[in-house]
Amino acid sequence: MTLNTQPYKGARDFYPEDKRKQDYIFNIWREEARRFGYEEYDAPIIEPLEIYAAKTSDEIVNEQTYVFEDRGGRKVTLRPEMTPTVSRMVAGRRQELVYPLRWFSIPNLWRYERPQRGRLREHWQLNVDLFGVAGIEGDHELILLMDSIMQRFGAMRDMYLIRLSSRELIDYILNDLYDLDIATAKNVIHLIDKMHKLEPEDFKNALKELMPNKTENLLGILQSNEFQNLPAEIKKHPAAERVHHLALMLARGGITNAKFDITLVRGFDYYTDTVFEVFDTNPENKRSLFGGGRYDGLVGAFGVEPIPTIGFGMGDVTLKDFLEFHNLMPELPTEIQISAILIGDVYAEAQQVIKALREAGINLAVDSTNRKMDKQLKSAAKAGYKYVIFIGEEELANQQFNIKEMATGQEQKVNLDQIANIIFK
Amino acid sequence: MTLNTQPYKGARDFYPEDKRKQDYIFNIWREEARRFGYEEYDAPIIEPLEIYAAKTSDEIVNEQTYVFEDRGGRKVTLRPEMTPTVSRMVAGRRQELVYPLRWFSIPNLWRYERPQRGRLREHWQLNVDLFGVAGIEGDHELILLMDSIMQRFGAMRDMYLIRLSSRELIDYILNDLYDLDIATAKNVIHLIDKMHKLEPEDFKNALKELMPNKTENLLGILQSNEFQNLPAEIKKHPAAERVHHLALMLARGGITNAKFDITLVRGFDYYTDTVFEVFDTNPENKRSLFGGGRYDGLVGAFGVEPIPTIGFGMGDVTLKDFLEFHNLMPELPTEIQISAILIGDVYAEAQQVIKALREAGINLAVDSTNRKMDKQLKSAAKAGYKYVIFIGEEELANQQFNIKEMATGQEQKVNLDQIANIIFK
Repeated sequence: MTLNTQPYKGARDFYPEDKRKQDYIFNIWREEARRFGYEEYDAPIIEPLEIYAAKTSDEIVNEQTYVFEDRGGRKVTLRPEMTPTVSRMVAGRRQELVYPLRWFSIPNLWRYERPQRGRLREHWQLNVDLFGVAGIEGDHELILLMDSIMQRFGAMRDMYLIRLSSRELIDYILNDLYDLDIATAKNVIHLIDKMHKLEPEDFKNALKELMPNKTENLLGILQSNEFQNLPAEIKKHPAAERVHHLALMLARGGITNAKFDITLVRGFDYYTDTVFEVFDTNPENKRSLFGGGRYDGLVGAFGVEPIPTIGFGMGDVTLKDFLEFHNLMPELPTEIQISAILIGDVYAEAQQVIKALREAGINLAVDSTNRKMDKQLKSAAKAGYKYVIFIGEEELANQQFNIKEMATGQEQKVNLDQIANIIFK
Repeated sequence: MTLNTQPYKGARDFYPEDKRKQDYIFNIWREEARRFGYEEYDAPIIEPLEIYAAKTSDEIVNEQTYVFEDRGGRKVTLRPEMTPTVSRMVAGRRQELVYPLRWFSIPNLWRYERPQRGRLREHWQLNVDLFGVAGIEGDHELILLMDSIMQRFGAMRDMYLIRLSSRELIDYILNDLYDLDIATAKNVIHLIDKMHKLEPEDFKNALKELMPNKTENLLGILQSNEFQNLPAEIKKHPAAERVHHLALMLARGGITNAKFDITLVRGFDYYTDTVFEVFDTNPENKRSLFGGGRYDGLVGAFGVEPIPTIGFGMGDVTLKDFLEFHNLMPELPTEIQISAILIGDVYAEAQQVIKALREAGINLAVDSTNRKMDKQLKSAAKAGYKYVIFIGEEELANQQFNIKEMATGQEQKVNLDQIANIIFK
């Protein structure tokens, strides 16, 4: 039987050139998260199903999880998101941990969906969470970090919009102003989450079915693009004032592309207050890139005292698409700098030189195929190595080596201790 | 319902202090692999079951895989090892890739086993593979890299042994000298793989059952500890000569702890020639740590021309145990260097200073809890931050800031641009 060479559908093989792009993204994520005081954690990709059943979203749990029984009969899931896991870990050491607690992780996540542009069955996601800051300073910090990451990747202010809103505010409108029961309110929130993907007429009809009264009133609110246009009773609600204040604070720090948008609700059920999202403004790629929000109740679901929490997730698939679409992905050459080409049967004799070069910090590959020299040179060029070094009996006797720069073809004869200077020049 | 805070059985949560240890291991793995010219790749954790059914080992495939059906009815596996995956990827681009091809990866692997010391259900493993070098230079390079990694971790020559042998040689003994059929020979190899875990009497009896003739003869061979003690017809076989030559080559480069050991066979069915293993010599931890071998046939199982291949895997669980057992794991402090303590309500006003410090490369956390100063200082100390900086209205007006070194309690008043020098001194 001949085996198939394709990766599992909706998932990706990362050949070295793809892995370098992923590392470029991961390294900036790590550096920026640490700049803001966040420490990295990790956890198993397998979790019990229950921790998602709690508060993730019915669609994900019932239709999109990779769920199975292990050989011991436990019902387990390949994690579709990281928030329940990090809540579990914080709850597990609720008393010992130091607050404010700043954590990040870059987990691999799985959802069974129809693969499409910007959405695969697996992705990697930067997850950043701040535990123990109840005030708006926490919300501000997370959005600032998200924005700093976008800036580090070279994004311009006009390439993306930061949309801000509040679950508490939408809950107030649905529960207090309209008197909807909890189940209906939840359905309306999920409908609003899909609003921008639906035709206006379809959205209106679906909304009417869920809440026959006050449909026009809610539509009016959802269509008021500016904070100032909202009805007075909504504008003066503390949650609205907080988000408005947050947008002003961000603008004061130069983040002029953050904007209150009451149609933003986010898909997860666990959000309790501020929600935010980075949105691609390009007319050909208009869509949500990533987001997050405040979820003050989730740690408490693990049987400990709840803790104010705010976090966001930033996926590698949408980000890579964004960077490539906006020409922000740099050229990333191989990390291997030089290949050693052996002249004659000197593999054993050349080891001391090879070792010395590696100890000088040089990433060096040896061509030990015994092919003809022109074949070896051709391979080195195709592999993208910047230099080759020739090692033969004469070179070893004199401790003088020819180094060739592949791009220019220029050769020079050098001592062993000059080589690092040439390569790292 | 209260949710459980424990991770899935046999798997690990990595709290930041654990993650730092893992990163310490991963970073040395990456650096050393690159020194030897290897480039990183990655692939999905889900693979079709068939690619293991081919040649991994019956025990792993039938008893230890995490196997399930996805929502589309495909039978899939959480990968138990990386070798079939990398073979699949190389086969998929057999013609375009440049040889010798040097690849490494650090995949997360899953096996359903009874968790025990040094063996969990999940682990991370450095996988290093060299494609396109048929000669012994390839074998030498892989063992050299494995050894370099051990040396980088600070291991002494007497802490570990490198055992070398050859599958081709054991195949020659079983198939040609003893005339065993393929199935019996495979069973004998699996039995030899477990030899050192069994009582000598039990091993002998099990061996007698598999091959009633020549049992004593094989036992004698397996007990000849030195290459010189082997029967002449075995010693002069080319495979034996190759391994012997390999041990000499390694010794010449200072690797004096590599030793031919005919009882080494390794568990996977795909090995074709040289096999090798790093073995902990400590009397209280005597066991195999990791290993590898040559598997020239596996890429060919994907319908392309086979390619000479040699590789090894090095797991994080056994390595971490080894490092801790031998006191080789260093202290790893948090990467976050400083916490900002705000005096009064200056969160918004302090942003410019905070931003400037981060742009200078400083990893800075802000205590935005509004707690009393002594509580904030206590938290900063417990979190392990080396410094705190006090920011209040007066400090912002004068652009002079007090920095306190937590270990000594020493404070100094400094300008903004002096802070990086203090922290990176």
